[in-house]
Amino acid sequence: MSIVQNWALFFDLYHPNMVDGYWRLGKQNDQAVFNLFYRRNPFGNGFTVVAGLEKIVKYIENLRFSDEDVEYLRSLNMFSDGFLNYLKDFRFTGDVDAMPEGTIAFPYEPIIRVKAPISEATLLEVFLANSMYQTLVATKTARVVRAAQGRPVYEFGARRAQEVDAAVWGSRASVIAGCAGTSNVLAAKEFGLKPVGTHAHAWVQSFPTEIEAFRAWAQLHPDNAMFLVDTYDTLKSGLPNAITVGREVEARGGRFAGIRLDSGKISYLSREARRMLDEAGFPHATIMASSDLDELRIQSLLLEGAKVDSFGVGTRLITAMDDPSLGAVYKMVARQEGNRWIPTIKVSEDPEKLGIPGDNHPVRVYHRDSGKAAGDLILPMGEKLPESGDEIVLQDPIHTARRKRVRNFKTRELLVPVFRNGKRVYQLPTVAEIQAYHRQELETLWDTYKALVDPESYPVNATRELIELRNRLMAEKRAGL
Amino acid sequence: MSIVQNWALFFDLYHPNMVDGYWRLGKQNDQAVFNLFYRRNPFGNGFTVVAGLEKIVKYIENLRFSDEDVEYLRSLNMFSDGFLNYLKDFRFTGDVDAMPEGTIAFPYEPIIRVKAPISEATLLEVFLANSMYQTLVATKTARVVRAAQGRPVYEFGARRAQEVDAAVWGSRASVIAGCAGTSNVLAAKEFGLKPVGTHAHAWVQSFPTEIEAFRAWAQLHPDNAMFLVDTYDTLKSGLPNAITVGREVEARGGRFAGIRLDSGKISYLSREARRMLDEAGFPHATIMASSDLDELRIQSLLLEGAKVDSFGVGTRLITAMDDPSLGAVYKMVARQEGNRWIPTIKVSEDPEKLGIPGDNHPVRVYHRDSGKAAGDLILPMGEKLPESGDEIVLQDPIHTARRKRVRNFKTRELLVPVFRNGKRVYQLPTVAEIQAYHRQELETLWDTYKALVDPESYPVNATRELIELRNRLMAEKRAGL
Repeated sequence: MSIVQNWALFFDLYHPNMVDGYWRLGKQNDQAVFNLFYRRNPFGNGFTVVAGLEKIVKYIENLRFSDEDVEYLRSLNMFSDGFLNYLKDFRFTGDVDAMPEGTIAFPYEPIIRVKAPISEATLLEVFLANSMYQTLVATKTARVVRAAQGRPVYEFGARRAQEVDAAVWGSRASVIAGCAGTSNVLAAKEFGLKPVGTHAHAWVQSFPTEIEAFRAWAQLHPDNAMFLVDTYDTLKSGLPNAITVGREVEARGGRFAGIRLDSGKISYLSREARRMLDEAGFPHATIMASSDLDELRIQSLLLEGAKVDSFGVGTRLITAMDDPSLGAVYKMVARQEGNRWIPTIKVSEDPEKLGIPGDNHPVRVYHRDSGKAAGDLILPMGEKLPESGDEIVLQDPIHTARRKRVRNFKTRELLVPVFRNGKRVYQLPTVAEIQAYHRQELETLWDTYKALVDPESYPVNATRELIELRNRLMAEKRAGL
Repeated sequence: MSIVQNWALFFDLYHPNMVDGYWRLGKQNDQAVFNLFYRRNPFGNGFTVVAGLEKIVKYIENLRFSDEDVEYLRSLNMFSDGFLNYLKDFRFTGDVDAMPEGTIAFPYEPIIRVKAPISEATLLEVFLANSMYQTLVATKTARVVRAAQGRPVYEFGARRAQEVDAAVWGSRASVIAGCAGTSNVLAAKEFGLKPVGTHAHAWVQSFPTEIEAFRAWAQLHPDNAMFLVDTYDTLKSGLPNAITVGREVEARGGRFAGIRLDSGKISYLSREARRMLDEAGFPHATIMASSDLDELRIQSLLLEGAKVDSFGVGTRLITAMDDPSLGAVYKMVARQEGNRWIPTIKVSEDPEKLGIPGDNHPVRVYHRDSGKAAGDLILPMGEKLPESGDEIVLQDPIHTARRKRVRNFKTRELLVPVFRNGKRVYQLPTVAEIQAYHRQELETLWDTYKALVDPESYPVNATRELIELRNRLMAEKRAGL
C-alpha cells in the first residue's frame, strides 16, 4: 500500500519524554492497560460506527524507528542514550483488542484496548486517537445514507478534506458505512472501492458552447452519457442541451444516462428536470444531486418532493462539518506493580467526563428472538456473561430504578483479539466485507436509536463493581492516598 | 522529506475522464488558465493567511504516474491507450504563480494561478484545493495568537487532527501564523519547528501517588520541572504537591519551571494557582493552560483576569472547528483557441458566488508613508499598476459611490512566479522565514481589519473592465451563445 508511511515519530513530545523517564527509572517494561474511548456520540446521533482499525494495524505492524528518527530525537538533547538505543530495536510486543470496523459503539465503551509494556502503550496514543477521525466520518455517513432512504450516496469530498490522508481514509470510512462509491481515485485504488464520476464545469467551459461540450462528451461516452447541467443556466440551457444531445445519442443507439445538478435550489430544479426529462421521453435518465449536501438537507429535499435518484456528498461529510472531532481519549485504566494489577483513574471535576477505571470490556446483550440489541454492559476484565440464557437484568448502577429485564438473551463480546505478544492474530477484512458487516450491525439496532434528531439513548451500563471501584479511587486520589 | 508520497492519483475520477476526452479529441495541449480562490473569509475573520504552497510545489515537482498507477487506471476499462501512454511520460510543463505562504489574502483573489496545457491543469485541481486546509489553519491560528496578546501559543492538536497529514501540515501552518512551537514531533522534525511538551496524566497515574510522580519527574528534569496538576484535584492535590516538590527541587539548586492546567475552569484555577505559587515564593513559576481553547475562549479568559502565561491549543485549532472548510475552488478563467485567448466563466445564480473571469492578477495598494495597505485591485493579466505614484482611486466597480483616494501610494503584485515551463523558479523559504514574513504582512494591515468579531471589510475591487467582461459573458452564456 503506497499510503503507508513512516509514522513512528507521530506522537507528542511528552510521549518520548515520559518513556525516557520510564526507561531511566527502570519502569519501561511495567505492564499497563490503556483504553481508547469517546464520551459523546457526534452529530447528536444515537450511536457511532467504528472505523480506523486497518490503519492502526498497519501502523503497529510497521512501527520501527529509523536511524534518522533516532538521530533527530538525539539532536533535541533531551533523551538518554539508553532510551534512544531502546528505540532502535523497538518492536510492539503487547496485546491489542478492538471492535472490528463497522461495529456500532457507544460512549465510554473501549473501542481499542492496549495491554503492553508502559513504554510501548504510551507511544501509540496519538496515532490511535488521531485515527478515530475515520469513526467520525463513518458515523456521519451512516446518517447521510439513512436520510437518502435507499438512494445511492457517493463520497465526493476529496478536494475539501483536511489534507490527503483524511480524503483517502475518510473515503474508505464512508464506504464502510454505506456509500456506494467515491470520486476519489487514490482511495478507490488503495481500498478497492468503486470510483465514480463524469465531467466538471471545466469540460463545458473548454468548448465554445455548452451543446458542443455535451455533443463531444456523448460521442466519447455513447453508452453512458451523463451531463452536468449547471455551468450556465440549469433550466434554460443545461437541460435543453442535455435533452437535445440525449436524443441524438439515443437515435444512434446510445444511452442518455442522466444529469447532475451541482448548484441552486435542488428541490425545485430536480422536479423541473424530472418533468422535462419525462416529457422528452427519457424517464430512464437519472438525476444526481451534489450541492453542499448533508443528512438534514437530504431529508429536507426528499420531504419537499425533490426528484433525485442519487446523491454526491462532499464537504460536509468528509470534514464532519458540524462536529469535526470525535474527542477520542486514550486513558490508562490499570498498571502492574510487581505481580499485582492496580486500577488507575484520571479524576475529573465533571462526573460526565469520568471514564471507567480498571481493565474492562464491553458486552452486548441481544434479544435472541428478534436479534435486536437490548443494551450493553461494561464488565471487569476476566468477568464474563453467559453466552445465552433465559433472563438477564440490565441495571443502571447509579440510577438503579432504570432497569431492563431481557428474556431469552444472547451476548456478544464487542472486542476481538488483534495482537497477541506483538503478533497480529486478526485477519483484516476487505472493505466490502466490512460494509456488509456494518449493514448487519444496523439490523440489530431498533429504529428508535437511529433517528437523525433526538434518538433514544441506548442503554450502556458499567457493572456496580466498576462504579464502586470508580467512586473509591476518586475518593482516595482526591485525598492524596 | 519522509512525508512526501506518491499523490499522483489523488484526483476525482472525472479528472482523468475529462483528460482522456481532451486527449481523444486532440485538445490535450490547448492552453488554459485556472485560478484557485475562495469566496468568504473563514471564522468571520477579516482576512486569510495563505499556506500550503510548499506541499503543492513538492507535489507538482514529483508528479509522475507509476506503472502501478497507470495499470490501475487501465483496469477500470474507461480510458484510451493513448491517454494512458501519455500519463506514463507525464511531467508538468506549465506556469504557476502563487501568493507566497504567509501572505494576507482576501476573497476572490487568485491565490494560485495555473497556466498550462488543459490536461495538466485539470489533473492538479483536487490536490491544490485540498491543500488549502493549511490556509484555514493558518487563519485560525492568526486569530488565536491575536487573542493571546503576546503570550506564546503552542499547537497541541495532533491527536485530534483529521488524520496524520492534517496534523503534520496543520502544525506547520500554525507556526507560519505565529505559534511558538508544537507538540507534534513528526511535524517538528519535518519542518524544523520547535517541539514542546512535558508529561501527561498517564505519568502521574503510573505512580502510586501524585507526589511520587512529581518527585520522579523533578529528579529527571531538575532544571526545568514542570508539572501537570489536574490528574486528581487541581487545587487540593496537584498544586500543593507541585509546590512541595518545587521547593525540594529548588533547594537542590534546580528550577521549578511551572505548572500546566488541562481541565476545569481555567480562569478561576489559574488565579488561585498564581496566588498559591506566589505565596509559596515561586513568582517565576509559569502557568500554561490547555483545555479546549480557541480565540474566543482565550479572549474571555483574559477578560476575566485569568493568570495564564502561555496557551496550548489543540482540537479547535487543528480541525478549524467552527469552519472546517475554506471552500476553495479552482476555476477555468481563460483558454486558448488557436492563437486567441478566450475568457471563460462558470455562471452562478447567486451573484455572490460568481468568480472573476479572464486571466487576472491581484495587486495591493499601500500608503507609502504608513506602509499600511489601502486596498487590493484585481486587474486583467498584462495590465499593470505603477509601482508608486502620487494618487490612485480605488473604486468599487458596482457600487461606484464606494471609492477611496490613496495619496502617495505604492503597489505590490501579490502573485510571484513559482513554475515556468514546468521548472521551479521559486526558492522555498524556511518556516521561520515565512513566520517573519507573515508578521510583516500583519503590520501592513490596519487593526480595524483584524478584529476577531465583526472586522471591517477590506476593500478588494476588480477593475471595471473585468466586471463588464463578467456581465457580458454571463449574458452570452445564459443566452446559449
